Amino acid sequence: MSVALDALLAGVRTGQRRAVARTLSLVENDSPHLREVMRRLAPDSGYAHVVGLTGAPGVGKSTTTSELVAELRTAGQRVGVLAIDPSSPFSGGALLGDRIRMQVHSTDNDVLIRSMATRGHLGGLSAATPQALRVLDAARCDTVIVETVGVGQSEVDIADACDTTVVLMAPGMGDSVQAAKAGVLEIGDVYVVNKSDRPGAQAVVRDLRTMIALTERADGAWKPPIVSTVSHTGSGVAELLLRIGEHRAAGEASGAWGSRRQRRAGLEIQALVLGTLRRRLIVGQHDADGLVELARSVREGELDSYTAADRLLEELTN
Amino acid sequence: MSVALDALLAGVRTGQRRAVARTLSLVENDSPHLREVMRRLAPDSGYAHVVGLTGAPGVGKSTTTSELVAELRTAGQRVGVLAIDPSSPFSGGALLGDRIRMQVHSTDNDVLIRSMATRGHLGGLSAATPQALRVLDAARCDTVIVETVGVGQSEVDIADACDTTVVLMAPGMGDSVQAAKAGVLEIGDVYVVNKSDRPGAQAVVRDLRTMIALTERADGAWKPPIVSTVSHTGSGVAELLLRIGEHRAAGEASGAWGSRRQRRAGLEIQALVLGTLRRRLIVGQHDADGLVELARSVREGELDSYTAADRLLEELTN
Repeated sequence: MSVALDALLAGVRTGQRRAVARTLSLVENDSPHLREVMRRLAPDSGYAHVVGLTGAPGVGKSTTTSELVAELRTAGQRVGVLAIDPSSPFSGGALLGDRIRMQVHSTDNDVLIRSMATRGHLGGLSAATPQALRVLDAARCDTVIVETVGVGQSEVDIADACDTTVVLMAPGMGDSVQAAKAGVLEIGDVYVVNKSDRPGAQAVVRDLRTMIALTERADGAWKPPIVSTVSHTGSGVAELLLRIGEHRAAGEASGAWGSRRQRRAGLEIQALVLGTLRRRLIVGQHDADGLVELARSVREGELDSYTAADRLLEELTN
Repeated sequence: MSVALDALLAGVRTGQRRAVARTLSLVENDSPHLREVMRRLAPDSGYAHVVGLTGAPGVGKSTTTSELVAELRTAGQRVGVLAIDPSSPFSGGALLGDRIRMQVHSTDNDVLIRSMATRGHLGGLSAATPQALRVLDAARCDTVIVETVGVGQSEVDIADACDTTVVLMAPGMGDSVQAAKAGVLEIGDVYVVNKSDRPGAQAVVRDLRTMIALTERADGAWKPPIVSTVSHTGSGVAELLLRIGEHRAAGEASGAWGSRRQRRAGLEIQALVLGTLRRRLIVGQHDADGLVELARSVREGELDSYTAADRLLEELTN
């Protein structure tokens, strides 16, 4: 592997599509080589501006991503896109929605697009995403867009993986209550009301403004702007990019940029630790007589689950 | 607490609503008393038939639950209902959808209904759910229905928490692809096509039958039936209950019932262990200089995240 790995990493560092794709597959499948890959790519990362893009199905995430890519290309940037599908814990294949709109960029060598399922990774989304981002970062992308469908926990997780979080909404989707429910009001650095040519768009902007004003944020200095877009015509996308840039500049000035990256690194380490412990537990489920016997006792009501957990933990950590 | 706890547990064991509600709040908030409560309730559980009910928003879960409760009450059973909202990681309050349909049962002392958010529990949904079920079980419920909205991972998790999993679908919701994506084809023991008086219901049944036939199941002996219902009229709900009963009988005959409960107990223990480890990590995030320094090194590209994780794990387990 060593010579092949040298060539692969050289390919990544010069931004070759094939090498990047192969390395991202190593991430996706949690390859045993990943540890060595990540060790060697560590010094090559930390340059890209990572922009997370999330929202409910149907708000126009792929169209917006595609338009953002076009704008960034016009500005001469090299762009990575990582589309994450956190939904399927079973069955092979990512089953991602239409990436058709991205095909316009598919022959551009300065655009690296990847759909990724994270089931195979022992650390899950939380460990696989930063690793994939590191690969695209090392491949000299100036901006990497992480697109994820907003369901449940995943959209909150994505905010922990990026520098700037963009939350998309659209009129007629009952987004206000959903947003409050899913906690997206705490995570957006920039809000987009897409399909703003449709009835009700102004009401969404108004609701959003009220809710944002009522929401306490960790980085108190930044007031998240709301951008109205019609992504399929590209209207408003230049302004969106401007706001994303302002978020970076404000964060660099206040120090929030660095502390967020620090936090991200901490979360990634924790995800890997939890992944390792989970693997020990899962292996234990099949192999260790200990857990089988503990589970039997709990099932029979002889033992409570806390006491059982204490005993298992003792086994694992000694 | 000891005398008060005695009274509380006596109240649970005699099925008093107030005592059950208070104990479920202890579960929800991961009270420090929970350990003692669970230790003492351990011998009182294992009796109730736990039926999980899941499906996308809008398929008619609450109406179906309410009709199932009515049928079970007619059969003289004592019934528990646990509605789980896994979506909100932030902001207080469960924000659950309309439980209006359940209000018909609200004056019936033999129906115990509870909405539960699981954010507060260190072990999350996976640890809180079995504990809540144990409380309702100890409160002499014959059947407990766990209702959860089908988003992402949560519907798969729910299958790990119950004896019989019922998956609801409805025509016109693009459920076929969603089902494949979310992995629900692997988990349903009984499928319901609700709103079966609407156009397209037959097609959903047909698609579902094909997909079930193509899906490999862990318990090969059981062939999941499909029941057509119109839950707001109650049509088909008696048949649904019949199929749920057949699933139990078949599982008891084949041994699948016991091995599933064994597996459940094992998963609960693991969730508690992971919760404990996660808490150590989170505490570590604030307190330990170790992680802060490791995160800084990863952020600066001096260290890769795997090596950092190894070092943190060593700290945690020694």
